Amino acid sequence: MTLLGPEIQDLEPQFPSHRKRNHTISEFIPKRHGPPLTRRSVTMDLERLYSTNMKNTKRSAIRELLKLTEKEGLISFGGGFPDPGVFPKEEIAQITAEVLAAEGNSALQYGLTAGNPRLRRALAKWEAAQGLHLGEENVIITTASQQGLELVSKMFIDPGDTVIVELPSYLGGLNAFTSYRANLVSIPLDDEGMKVDLLSDKLKELHDLGKMPKFIYVVPDFQNPAGVTLSLERRRKLLELCYQYDLLLVEDTPYRELRFEGTAPLDLLALDERGYVISLHTFSKILFPGMRLGWALGPREIIDKMELAKQSMDLCSPSFTQSIVLRYMERGLLEPQIQRIISIYRKKRDTMLKALEAYMPKVPGMHWTHPEGGLFLWVTLPESIDTEEMFTEAVERNVAYVVGKAFCADGGGENSMRLNFSFPTEEEISEGIRRLAEAVKARLG
Amino acid sequence: MTLLGPEIQDLEPQFPSHRKRNHTISEFIPKRHGPPLTRRSVTMDLERLYSTNMKNTKRSAIRELLKLTEKEGLISFGGGFPDPGVFPKEEIAQITAEVLAAEGNSALQYGLTAGNPRLRRALAKWEAAQGLHLGEENVIITTASQQGLELVSKMFIDPGDTVIVELPSYLGGLNAFTSYRANLVSIPLDDEGMKVDLLSDKLKELHDLGKMPKFIYVVPDFQNPAGVTLSLERRRKLLELCYQYDLLLVEDTPYRELRFEGTAPLDLLALDERGYVISLHTFSKILFPGMRLGWALGPREIIDKMELAKQSMDLCSPSFTQSIVLRYMERGLLEPQIQRIISIYRKKRDTMLKALEAYMPKVPGMHWTHPEGGLFLWVTLPESIDTEEMFTEAVERNVAYVVGKAFCADGGGENSMRLNFSFPTEEEISEGIRRLAEAVKARLG
Repeated sequence: MTLLGPEIQDLEPQFPSHRKRNHTISEFIPKRHGPPLTRRSVTMDLERLYSTNMKNTKRSAIRELLKLTEKEGLISFGGGFPDPGVFPKEEIAQITAEVLAAEGNSALQYGLTAGNPRLRRALAKWEAAQGLHLGEENVIITTASQQGLELVSKMFIDPGDTVIVELPSYLGGLNAFTSYRANLVSIPLDDEGMKVDLLSDKLKELHDLGKMPKFIYVVPDFQNPAGVTLSLERRRKLLELCYQYDLLLVEDTPYRELRFEGTAPLDLLALDERGYVISLHTFSKILFPGMRLGWALGPREIIDKMELAKQSMDLCSPSFTQSIVLRYMERGLLEPQIQRIISIYRKKRDTMLKALEAYMPKVPGMHWTHPEGGLFLWVTLPESIDTEEMFTEAVERNVAYVVGKAFCADGGGENSMRLNFSFPTEEEISEGIRRLAEAVKARLG
Repeated sequence: MTLLGPEIQDLEPQFPSHRKRNHTISEFIPKRHGPPLTRRSVTMDLERLYSTNMKNTKRSAIRELLKLTEKEGLISFGGGFPDPGVFPKEEIAQITAEVLAAEGNSALQYGLTAGNPRLRRALAKWEAAQGLHLGEENVIITTASQQGLELVSKMFIDPGDTVIVELPSYLGGLNAFTSYRANLVSIPLDDEGMKVDLLSDKLKELHDLGKMPKFIYVVPDFQNPAGVTLSLERRRKLLELCYQYDLLLVEDTPYRELRFEGTAPLDLLALDERGYVISLHTFSKILFPGMRLGWALGPREIIDKMELAKQSMDLCSPSFTQSIVLRYMERGLLEPQIQRIISIYRKKRDTMLKALEAYMPKVPGMHWTHPEGGLFLWVTLPESIDTEEMFTEAVERNVAYVVGKAFCADGGGENSMRLNFSFPTEEEISEGIRRLAEAVKARLG
């Protein structure tokens, strides 16, 4: 398992190729005698064949750092992994058996591109429970919310199109947009989320340049990587700007339900009165990631187009896991599961904040966010410290993080890092932060 | 469930939106009071925002025909659905319970983008059993082979690039390529697959025009939709042409293992000695489609790039279902399962061939293919019959098919249709072909 999170993982080490055996899978299929493919090299000029989009997609140098973290005894704050201790394994085994017995024929068959209609209705109802009236036609099931990001990219981005993102922003979103050659324009955030006054200035500037963005991408709740939440006032202002300039607003909100305290500002989808918002959701954090199921909400016209775009991507999301999640929801198990996750992550966040307070040197320029939920917090160090340079020193001390630069579309963020508190144990959090503080102190000299 | 197969399905009918309830999912998240989203219309000009690729993606008129088939008592030869009667439901329930008990923490967690390394090795071994030496690095797990098609499209197609396809060809492939605005050039096939002499002429012509294709796309085994298999001689010739013009060859082979008789020609991957072939595979037909798991094989350089492209699409395929399929393979259950499927589909194919022989009018121009495996056969009718026009008449007689035009990138195929024999029962096949023959006779007058 990689330690830097699913969106920035790299290849596992190579394995030797396997020797041939002496049987065939079917009496009708003769054994092949090709030369070993592993030793065959591509003799053509692949670069000539790759699409321009693909030529622009490179492995990031930051991913290479990952290789250093595959080390015994290392405590990682790098991953975006949920705590597997809360996975409801027995309940899922029980429900899977029920699904296969009661509806195995449809659960193992192809499904509809937009998703299981019963699951779409259950999710509409789930939103209705929070006061927002939605119909099945406003819901599409996606192969986790990353596919939502890919769909939005494919549907709206022509090469060179401007997309507004937060600074810092979610790496998986940035990767999806740049894979369609979007021109990313970053708007800094503070403890209340994206600075909408700066956004307003930037939109005016882009408008005058004739480079109007296609959409604005925000992670409004317990942002990845910064952990901050967009305030209600700024949400309203953000929507006003979208209306003013006729821009879509893509709300990516995988952690919203994982609130430990305080009051949630209304989500952008609920605030929107003009059908400008697409809202991306996932079961990855409120249940578990291993099924790759998410959903998108939005105006029917856009959901219909998403369905059309999804068809050539994977025909449909897995019927099998959709049936399992549906039954899990119908059984009323999702809400108590979310409460369990909240109570565990809240303690872990508290432990991390306490450890930072206890161990980090009190020097000017040192700052960390205080997330009210989610999985991450963001540490800003004095400007003299480059977290990419410090990384190997941290790994020597058996602790890892993600360098902040990875999340900054403007190339900055040198003195910042993302810390995850959902995956490590409370003991690991305390000890890991102590080690990290030692690395920082050593750098400060 | 739609009747025309997953790649050409349409939306289910609408459902009314749900009323709001009086509780919230968490004490911290207040109830929203937005206006009902279903009644909110998009007030912006979406067409202005869509990407050029998306503007070119339209719902096909043929999909609209589907709506006619949701009818009691209708026998459908339309779908590409496996027979659910062979789904190993109890074994899967048992194996799922074992997976969750033994390795639930990793099975429900994020996995690697390239797939579970143990499953990649198991698939390399599966190929090795057939005599082809592959390493894990030559295998990538995809979210079914449709994602393989999307990956190939994204990786290689720039707008306007030429792609060579068969005439007729698999609709899901055509959709993926055109969603990246490929210019499709069709090469007709006969009972031995793509006519490589025509391909040779066409490549010369394209070469002279400076419009060299990026790749050639073939379904060499029991082709969808035609049911024919590319002969060994033509396979060799096809590879030679790829070497001569420096073209990739994309081999999409979901049905290869489902051979009822005769001897399989070596697959293109095994024949290739220069690393020009990408081979797409899926568990959808040899196990069941409801998990959406497939794999691609090829030279390491290309598999590495596929991994990079997949990362922004869905981060990784589901760990949960990968663990289940892996254990199913390790238990040695896949080979007997394939044998069971073969014995059932063989009988269904025989029933369909016998019924066609018995009921179809013996008139000039009437022809159908005799597939040695797979799920489909292809019927060519006298030129006076347009299968799109005949469709409503067939549905009135309670039988459905897919009009051949849907598979023809050149816009032709008016007098042809695809018939599926895997999904209907043997009784339905006999009765359905009888009804279809009545419709044909009525048209012939």
